[in-house]
Amino acid sequence: MDDCIFCKIINGEIPSVKVYEDDRVFAFEDINPIRDGHTLIIPKSHAENIWEMSAEDMAAVAKAARKLAGAIRKALDPAGIACLQLNGRAVNQLVMHYHLHLIPQKEDDPELTMTAWKLVAGDMDRIGKTGEKIAAAVS
Amino acid sequence: MDDCIFCKIINGEIPSVKVYEDDRVFAFEDINPIRDGHTLIIPKSHAENIWEMSAEDMAAVAKAARKLAGAIRKALDPAGIACLQLNGRAVNQLVMHYHLHLIPQKEDDPELTMTAWKLVAGDMDRIGKTGEKIAAAVS
Repeated sequence: MDDCIFCKIINGEIPSVKVYEDDRVFAFEDINPIRDGHTLIIPKSHAENIWEMSAEDMAAVAKAARKLAGAIRKALDPAGIACLQLNGRAVNQLVMHYHLHLIPQKEDDPELTMTAWKLVAGDMDRIGKTGEKIAAAVS
Repeated sequence: MDDCIFCKIINGEIPSVKVYEDDRVFAFEDINPIRDGHTLIIPKSHAENIWEMSAEDMAAVAKAARKLAGAIRKALDPAGIACLQLNGRAVNQLVMHYHLHLIPQKEDDPELTMTAWKLVAGDMDRIGKTGEKIAAAVS
């Protein structure tokens, strides 16, 4: 897409720190890293979000994530890696081209805010009904 | 694995609210939901994290995520969905069987803490060097 910053990165119109590329995907370092080695993986074919992605591009991004998680571990030896992918402005998606974040975390890093979840048991009846709705909607 | 709670869910030893299943993956509702429709997708073959996953299982989970994101949208009409997958106790992985969270968000929900990131530009030199190390480690 003409006005998409990630399409411009793929096309080389905007420079980037590329870490991997294959027929379907392109991976590069986030320039606003939450941690050292914060990496983004994107499909070369423009898709705004998970709903616009092809099954083939989903598989290609996932395989690249496995490959890059191995590379990040080898290169940086983090204690863990968080993989995050946001769909929609309501969850703070900022660039409207599908992208998967790989965020390495070291033992002595402060806790990532995205992992500071309180585990509160839900209402099983409500959970069951929601699950039924979703199961019925699977096509 | 004998003592893995998710393997027991797959085998039916522990009940769950299943929303999808195919040859390779199993999907069910999180019983500690951050939001209504908080769904987990797991591979049937036990793998602790992204480093232990096969490429085939990565692709299968990703394709199931696309399918379930569609189902969740159809069923719940959220304003967005966050997809999160944690590797290692350092990023707060609590169950040591690979799992992808799908977390739907409505317009009027409070902001998910995982998305409350401050965008602070990083040091381009440092980013470049880190990127080089990672690129060199891709195999």
